[in-house]
Amino acid sequence: MSAEITSSSSLIQLTPIVTRSSSSLPGLVDQTLLADTTMVERTVKTAHSVYEHLIALWAPAIIEAAHDLSVFATLAKEPMDVVRLAQVLQSDLRGMRVLLDALYALGFVQRSYAGDGTQLYSISQELQSCLLPGGIFSLVGKMIYDRRLAWPAWQNFAQAVRTGSADQAGHYGQNQISDSDYEYLVNGINFWAPPSITELCRGLQELEWDTSKAASVLDVGCGTGLYCQLLLQKFQHWTALGLDCERIIPLAISQSERLGVESQFSSRVCDFWQDEWGSNFDLILFANIFHLQTRESARTLVTMASRALAPGGLICIVDHILDDERNAQTSQDRFALLFAASMLATGGGDAYSLGDYDRWFAEADLRRVCVLDTPMHRLLLATHAS
Amino acid sequence: MSAEITSSSSLIQLTPIVTRSSSSLPGLVDQTLLADTTMVERTVKTAHSVYEHLIALWAPAIIEAAHDLSVFATLAKEPMDVVRLAQVLQSDLRGMRVLLDALYALGFVQRSYAGDGTQLYSISQELQSCLLPGGIFSLVGKMIYDRRLAWPAWQNFAQAVRTGSADQAGHYGQNQISDSDYEYLVNGINFWAPPSITELCRGLQELEWDTSKAASVLDVGCGTGLYCQLLLQKFQHWTALGLDCERIIPLAISQSERLGVESQFSSRVCDFWQDEWGSNFDLILFANIFHLQTRESARTLVTMASRALAPGGLICIVDHILDDERNAQTSQDRFALLFAASMLATGGGDAYSLGDYDRWFAEADLRRVCVLDTPMHRLLLATHAS
Repeated sequence: MSAEITSSSSLIQLTPIVTRSSSSLPGLVDQTLLADTTMVERTVKTAHSVYEHLIALWAPAIIEAAHDLSVFATLAKEPMDVVRLAQVLQSDLRGMRVLLDALYALGFVQRSYAGDGTQLYSISQELQSCLLPGGIFSLVGKMIYDRRLAWPAWQNFAQAVRTGSADQAGHYGQNQISDSDYEYLVNGINFWAPPSITELCRGLQELEWDTSKAASVLDVGCGTGLYCQLLLQKFQHWTALGLDCERIIPLAISQSERLGVESQFSSRVCDFWQDEWGSNFDLILFANIFHLQTRESARTLVTMASRALAPGGLICIVDHILDDERNAQTSQDRFALLFAASMLATGGGDAYSLGDYDRWFAEADLRRVCVLDTPMHRLLLATHAS
Repeated sequence: MSAEITSSSSLIQLTPIVTRSSSSLPGLVDQTLLADTTMVERTVKTAHSVYEHLIALWAPAIIEAAHDLSVFATLAKEPMDVVRLAQVLQSDLRGMRVLLDALYALGFVQRSYAGDGTQLYSISQELQSCLLPGGIFSLVGKMIYDRRLAWPAWQNFAQAVRTGSADQAGHYGQNQISDSDYEYLVNGINFWAPPSITELCRGLQELEWDTSKAASVLDVGCGTGLYCQLLLQKFQHWTALGLDCERIIPLAISQSERLGVESQFSSRVCDFWQDEWGSNFDLILFANIFHLQTRESARTLVTMASRALAPGGLICIVDHILDDERNAQTSQDRFALLFAASMLATGGGDAYSLGDYDRWFAEADLRRVCVLDTPMHRLLLATHAS
């Protein structure tokens, strides 16, 4: 594959997008009734906002309890009224009524009326795809991960800050979640892939990278493999190799069959640090891999990628990437800073800045060619510097 | 005090306010990069929203950890860079950097630059008033309450739904939080009072209730007493009696001194159910009292209030009040439905509807004269029916 990127081309700055999205959580404070002229009024208004932050705890608890009680799975089979649902799930009637009301307030269940006036609860198709197990974009894995890991970890966040999650020798580790927890999580974050691949393709187009020729993709730490598999669906003359650990590779294989790209997709159980990756890849993907690294292991990964990259090839990193001022003016910056806190809470990993990546690129004789925004992340493209 | 409300006046419907406030939590998803044309696109967009709900857990954890580590108290004394703050608080440097970044992303700390380019962190005056102990609108009590009660309670929410928080005899209790936890909490929700009192005064004006004459206020379960004390500040010819338990009354007395209304304010340690309230009050306040009740105890409270109310007097109830369809189209409705879930999680209490109150009023020979919205609650005014 010949690249259209000549070594003389300078950094390409794609149109910056200023993001002012507000949270998708429903507002619980009627701001129109809060004045902000006097200091006391501003304090009272601020107190409402602080309170709204503190009770943000409620939403995940309500959604995860509904999952635990099989409310989503049961309502997906057929709409039900609260009496029947409480019977089927052997739950207290009042408790179930309160739960359904709360889910309704959060927009997680819909209400309709049966002929006799009974209120029936149901779940939209889109939410079923997210809240039931088995779907490609199911967040059930994330919910299980939250119940097992996130809640206790966040409750002890002050302790993690105090110690920096360093081990006894003072080293910060790579992210240390267990294989089984990683398996739950990896299935729960597939939804990040489609808009990232859309942006990647936009970037390839703006760079005038020739996508019409056969290309070989390496997906390092592929997880379910969705990032490269979406590319394979789009470019049927491309092939991809996914690398991940023994426990994860079967997920990637079965998903490649589900998406009808199994003939283009191969996979290998691989210890990134010990085993050969192969060489001459046209596109090397790292989706949500770098935030799990220490600075040292991140630098090593970039060097290894440089060695495996074909002339004119591209390295694509999708991750929480900070601008160098650590300013949080966009959703992507805010999410990166908060995700770093999440990493600290659950033990290991970090969010690195553009400057960090640029240094690692330079050391590996690479250079960054563009930065793109995805809904919650940033996407870097880099190529050989010379 | 003569009331301007004649028995012939029908229910007064004040201008309804449609509220479409969005959450004050910062958005973490750049919605502009998510398409919603195809079913897959809508599913992916929905998955981002579900994820944003699940990670809403992070905000309270980050804020409460900063409180636990004395970050707010320390930065309130003087702006500091992360190195100095980590030293002063004997925290890991990287941990503190991650925490400050996260607080910055949430808008809880500000950043400025010292002459030498060092980034200094500080906290706005408004946030200091909310995040430091001692201030009238401090939420420190709410944070302590959260650490002690809310986190473990919400983690077991599925169990509370299953059993309905009923005791072994099958009775739902009144809210059973301990006196010390109530003491923490009562100080942490003062911020609800000022906009509620603003709305109450608006209601009194629209009802043409004569506020120029001396009036006696009874504040049942007064907590810190802020609701009646703000009225006393506004109407210096009014007097108020606050009723609460032994542990809380000292808070109300000292706050009345702080607000300069101690000569108008008296208080009494009182078991609402056993002790006399007195009689002939012009205005009887119940601020956040009814949601702690069972239906039976709520009915009893209304009856007792009716007996203690002067001719032409008003009963004012500020609480989570549902419309009868339990629809959640406004901040107030959503908060009421979610607060009911919170009550279930922490054991007891409920959110009642306008219809419930109207029945209790009718049984006590009272009638509702208006409903007003406050930023997170509703406010009911009722008077003698005949």
